[in-house]
Amino acid sequence: MLQSIPLKNIEIQNPFWNEYLDLVHKEIIPYQWDAMNDRIPGAEPSHCIENYRIAAGQAEGKFYGFVFQDSDLAKWLEAVAYVLSSRPDPELEKLADEAIDLVCAAQQPDGYLNTYYTLNAPHQRWRNLREGHELYCAGHIMEAAVAYYEATGKRKLLHSMMRFADLICDTFGPEEGKIHAYPGHEEVELALYKMYKATGEQRYLDMASYFIDIRGVDKDYYHRENDEPDFMPIWGYLSKDFDISYYQAHQSVREQKKAAGHAVRATYLYSAMADLAGETGDESLLEACRTLWDNITKKQMYVTGGIGSSGILERFSTDYDLSNEVAYAESCASIGLMLFGLRMNHITRNAEYFDAVERALYNTVLASVSRDGKRFFYVNPLEVWPEACMPNTSKQHVKPVRQPWFSCACCPPNIARTFASLGQYIWAQDQNCLYLNLFIGSTVKTKNGAYVTLRTKFPVENTMEIIGDKAIKMAVRIPDYAYNFTAGVTYHVKDGYAVFDLEANKPVMISFEAPSRFIRANPEVRANAGKVCIQRGPMVYCFEQIDNGANLSALSVNTSSPLVDVESDIPGGIMITASGKRCKPWAKDKLYSENVPEYEEVVLRAVPYAFWGNRGSGEMLVWIREAVQ
Amino acid sequence: MLQSIPLKNIEIQNPFWNEYLDLVHKEIIPYQWDAMNDRIPGAEPSHCIENYRIAAGQAEGKFYGFVFQDSDLAKWLEAVAYVLSSRPDPELEKLADEAIDLVCAAQQPDGYLNTYYTLNAPHQRWRNLREGHELYCAGHIMEAAVAYYEATGKRKLLHSMMRFADLICDTFGPEEGKIHAYPGHEEVELALYKMYKATGEQRYLDMASYFIDIRGVDKDYYHRENDEPDFMPIWGYLSKDFDISYYQAHQSVREQKKAAGHAVRATYLYSAMADLAGETGDESLLEACRTLWDNITKKQMYVTGGIGSSGILERFSTDYDLSNEVAYAESCASIGLMLFGLRMNHITRNAEYFDAVERALYNTVLASVSRDGKRFFYVNPLEVWPEACMPNTSKQHVKPVRQPWFSCACCPPNIARTFASLGQYIWAQDQNCLYLNLFIGSTVKTKNGAYVTLRTKFPVENTMEIIGDKAIKMAVRIPDYAYNFTAGVTYHVKDGYAVFDLEANKPVMISFEAPSRFIRANPEVRANAGKVCIQRGPMVYCFEQIDNGANLSALSVNTSSPLVDVESDIPGGIMITASGKRCKPWAKDKLYSENVPEYEEVVLRAVPYAFWGNRGSGEMLVWIREAVQ
Repeated sequence: MLQSIPLKNIEIQNPFWNEYLDLVHKEIIPYQWDAMNDRIPGAEPSHCIENYRIAAGQAEGKFYGFVFQDSDLAKWLEAVAYVLSSRPDPELEKLADEAIDLVCAAQQPDGYLNTYYTLNAPHQRWRNLREGHELYCAGHIMEAAVAYYEATGKRKLLHSMMRFADLICDTFGPEEGKIHAYPGHEEVELALYKMYKATGEQRYLDMASYFIDIRGVDKDYYHRENDEPDFMPIWGYLSKDFDISYYQAHQSVREQKKAAGHAVRATYLYSAMADLAGETGDESLLEACRTLWDNITKKQMYVTGGIGSSGILERFSTDYDLSNEVAYAESCASIGLMLFGLRMNHITRNAEYFDAVERALYNTVLASVSRDGKRFFYVNPLEVWPEACMPNTSKQHVKPVRQPWFSCACCPPNIARTFASLGQYIWAQDQNCLYLNLFIGSTVKTKNGAYVTLRTKFPVENTMEIIGDKAIKMAVRIPDYAYNFTAGVTYHVKDGYAVFDLEANKPVMISFEAPSRFIRANPEVRANAGKVCIQRGPMVYCFEQIDNGANLSALSVNTSSPLVDVESDIPGGIMITASGKRCKPWAKDKLYSENVPEYEEVVLRAVPYAFWGNRGSGEMLVWIREAVQ
Repeated sequence: MLQSIPLKNIEIQNPFWNEYLDLVHKEIIPYQWDAMNDRIPGAEPSHCIENYRIAAGQAEGKFYGFVFQDSDLAKWLEAVAYVLSSRPDPELEKLADEAIDLVCAAQQPDGYLNTYYTLNAPHQRWRNLREGHELYCAGHIMEAAVAYYEATGKRKLLHSMMRFADLICDTFGPEEGKIHAYPGHEEVELALYKMYKATGEQRYLDMASYFIDIRGVDKDYYHRENDEPDFMPIWGYLSKDFDISYYQAHQSVREQKKAAGHAVRATYLYSAMADLAGETGDESLLEACRTLWDNITKKQMYVTGGIGSSGILERFSTDYDLSNEVAYAESCASIGLMLFGLRMNHITRNAEYFDAVERALYNTVLASVSRDGKRFFYVNPLEVWPEACMPNTSKQHVKPVRQPWFSCACCPPNIARTFASLGQYIWAQDQNCLYLNLFIGSTVKTKNGAYVTLRTKFPVENTMEIIGDKAIKMAVRIPDYAYNFTAGVTYHVKDGYAVFDLEANKPVMISFEAPSRFIRANPEVRANAGKVCIQRGPMVYCFEQIDNGANLSALSVNTSSPLVDVESDIPGGIMITASGKRCKPWAKDKLYSENVPEYEEVVLRAVPYAFWGNRGSGEMLVWIREAVQ
């Protein structure tokens, strides 16, 4: 099993990514702090910090926001911790310490922490596990506690969260008198595993295992809970008639073969299953993880690494059902896919898992944030026609422009913590070998004390230099899009890695070709029949109205003509051109006709999907029709 | 202005349609009676009749169903009336008389009739006009009353409904002390106009005019109503945050340029506007009708005559937004389009309006009922992949098979009353001329006492014989799909009609060509870019899995090869074949690849959209990709 390398031992130096890391540190984190304090004009209200203040007795007022509003601060704190791991910032650390003081002040004497229930219905604790998000919020604040402890050595939040974890262990479990049930939104399982790794407390590992093993075994728990006379519903109409597959509770986890239900919940569950499988060597659990991973990445994943296609309930639908213009593809779900893939890679030492992780990162996750770090996508469609994204219609969930904040603001802080923890996706190690998974320039200090540096301009260029100050065995991922992979050293290929010996102070040059190319979807994907998209390295490209004119659906591409990389000043540097056709417009007053269409030859211009929508509102298209000759 | 001919003066004799009229009379009407009495095993509960019984004091119990449940019986009665106009059936008439007795027994002493409010909240009358559907239900029962009076001469229900109409006139209007507002679901306007025509009561016409003129003028009425302290909401979450364009209340009706909001409400409103414009000669109202008609039929109508594309809120979205697989296209909305077009034709004497009426009738409306008359579509998609039509997803509204009944059962009785009143769509007349709008074999008795007979096998064949027992001037519609229209008599063309003198007892033979052909959509229709559909006469064709194998999206059609009509025993008689290609399947475990697709040549088989889904569940596709050569 591979191990993560502590973030404080990884320093990223990379023109492409440093820009984002600066953005997280200098823009996104301060911006989100302001958002949680309701200081962003025109943004959806948050009230997150105020809820904590009221629960801590430091302010008067009522709870406002979603039942999971607490988790925004938790994810912010986790992101801050990751930033502080490699970028000392006393002022930010002071702010985080104060936030932690506030969180601890809002905690109840018995360790319980949840401002929604504390302020609204203290007697309803743990009585609506399906909707209540208490364990979800607990998980996020525990993850923050571990991250902050690892980054700063400070134990205040960790101790406070151990008290909460202890309360959870005393409340749930197989023993008589405890609640025999599992959370509606998975997350605490991941967190309890991290708490176990940070503290060595076996009961936290056991608690995580219990939540995973019992899920979907007692299928009626949520219904019984719902039938209690004083049951307090959270989501009106959703509270009455629900489908337990939404909560991955339709089967025991080892029986589940298809990714189902709410995509974020699903991937958090699968990631926790992988944690447990890796820790305990449970083969049946690992097999379930493999099956679910394959189902997602081979049948339910957009080419952008987006998952969960349904605009209703943010959920997986059925295999190959990947509509472009009504896609949901929530940013957090792609983050969940990254978490899952990272763990599967660590368990199996197989590089293939990173093909999907990298796809999600360089496309859906990157696209989720604007170039100035102040606007966010929650939903990530592959085709946008702004005029049709009307409220109260089937495309109401699609926002053609990034939003300053969301009433349900799970995504922005999740993106921040993901970027801030990028190092863990780049490097990993085991006893003998250092693994390079993502081509992001950085220096890593291994557990053996070696310093290894990767220098590269990837993804713009596909060459890299690796140099270490001590001899070390290395495994470099050969991505699925690479042609003619070469290393200036003898290597053998194992499970998708080029494995070689790096000599001390002797650089190794690695290169491969990853030219722009046309990609097609499996013909089972109804939405993409007759269409192609363009990919260059890990980056999927798209067509924007600003470069190609209005009505992108009238365009088709000549796939026998070459794709040409063109240096430009668009974000990402490289635009791709292709030759194609535009169907000429008709008279506006004719809707159907026997008209034979007329075409004009055009040059099509594509830009990275990651950067779409940074130049005003307009149409966008990933999958383009192949021209009828 | 053209006038309708009483249904009792029209006898339909046509192999294609007699089958449907028998179905309405012998299957659908008895079946719906059973459904409303909750005697259909496995169907959604109705409780409609029981609600009336309870309100009449003939049974004990509580109201069950939607707020507009009463209207199911009203539409059923209206359908029965139309059937009885031309098909005497004493047993059915007796049943209808008993149903009318029940309705009258449920009426309150002051004329009010609505079992929902009477049983649930008598003090809340007229207090939630936006959601309450009291005026909508009133309208349907008034329409039934007029129809039953015209069919049977019996006045009981008409008198009872005059008392209700009087109450409405006393309750609403510009005078002080009356309610200055308009119904959330239009329908009573159409009914009051019919009541005026049947009774000569000017106040009913004035009341209809008031409801139309005031709509959208006071834009805040619904909000003020909502803010009343004892406001009783009907639809939970929809009651709080609503968009008044859903109710066509965003502008005064003469300002409205784009069809907007709930498609059935919209078309009922526009039809009533046309009634008033025709009656009063109000040019500004007629101009608004023309503009809205053009917007629908030139920018917001599926090729099947379906309208209202959004799966959320059953509403119009934006121009050219006509997605196929998430289409809503409610059956009732196409019926509303037929009502609107019929009126516009009568006002303008322009045959063009019937091109859309016929399109809706021969495609969406016909498709809404199964060949056995016992299953119904409410939603009419143009592309169906049954596996993806999952509950709790973006395609949850699409049912891949017709349903036995609906909890919201507006469509089945609406289809019945439309088929039963088919005669009014075939013939019309003015002082000098008899107009033939639809090619449905029948004999009509004109106001001048002439009997004119049309004999035809349309739509299977495009020849027809017209013969009359007296000399009469005739206008025969030249449909938009007709080539080489010929009549065995001299004619001139006026506003889409071939106008000629029919001599007594001298048949005129009319024929035109309406071959199978490829139709394309305006390139502004994003969903149909690169695609064609097949139309033969007024009938749109589609591809079904049973004839073409699974994964219809893998098929493309060679548009330069001929379309061949093939006689077959499928419903409708004529299958159409074309040559095309099938993209060969890939390995199941590859989702994206640089693979160049491989094709095999195939013969494609298309059947009328009207009859799809009568041979088991499977995929269906109207718009097919044009083959890449």
